[in-house]
Amino acid sequence: MLEDFLHVSITCRNIDSSIDFYERIGLTMTKRLPEVVEDGIMTAFRLPKGRLSVAYLSAPQGRSKMFIDLVQWLEPEAAGQAYPVLNNVGLNRLAFRVKDLDATVSVLKMSGIEFLSEEPQRFGDGIRSIVTTDPDGTFVQLVEGL
Amino acid sequence: MLEDFLHVSITCRNIDSSIDFYERIGLTMTKRLPEVVEDGIMTAFRLPKGRLSVAYLSAPQGRSKMFIDLVQWLEPEAAGQAYPVLNNVGLNRLAFRVKDLDATVSVLKMSGIEFLSEEPQRFGDGIRSIVTTDPDGTFVQLVEGL
Repeated sequence: MLEDFLHVSITCRNIDSSIDFYERIGLTMTKRLPEVVEDGIMTAFRLPKGRLSVAYLSAPQGRSKMFIDLVQWLEPEAAGQAYPVLNNVGLNRLAFRVKDLDATVSVLKMSGIEFLSEEPQRFGDGIRSIVTTDPDGTFVQLVEGL
Repeated sequence: MLEDFLHVSITCRNIDSSIDFYERIGLTMTKRLPEVVEDGIMTAFRLPKGRLSVAYLSAPQGRSKMFIDLVQWLEPEAAGQAYPVLNNVGLNRLAFRVKDLDATVSVLKMSGIEFLSEEPQRFGDGIRSIVTTDPDGTFVQLVEGL
């Protein structure tokens, strides 16, 4: 029956900008399908068309085999906006385990990545965490100690 | 630096209903924190308060160590709605690897779970997939063959 988590899918407006962002935070692109046209996707997703550009991004050091199924819809084009707040109902935030959060944040800040708080925040039993957003505003959380 | 995927967080309106749904599709609750009050979360998430009810849900057969960080916000309460369409920008869909999709769908249909298409749809190189929604409308995809 249900074996495991497989992937989380992120819809983006510009797949090259999003690939660049996720590679900068440390993921590796493992697959790139510039144009997929599938009636099965259209039917499964209840959309009028199923034409999309896809990239898979994995954590190179990770054992989870999880990946991001990054999708730029070609037909239909992407709709709406990413959730504006971290308490919006729905799939709200994707979290990564980070070994040395301060060093990681320092490197990412130097590469121009901005965070919602000035410094990582502490909570729970020794958990430290900071949140950033991808080019479309999707919330991405870095977590140490969980 | 970035080690691996850690979790995906889902904001729900009623945590008991959502726990019930995710247990019915085959996950196991591994942690339950009925009330967390943390200024660190408030600051990290740029919210006016940080009072929330939390459950972790894992795939019992899975090796990924991934989990769902299921959150019912107490203060502030949840905002907005889940994305209405599968091409909405943002974290759009959470996918699980399933061994016998037809058997799984059959069992889930008997338990009252509804899907966006009548039957699993085929695409790519032998991939079969079907999509359902959690109690708040969050898209959950079951995938066989990927």
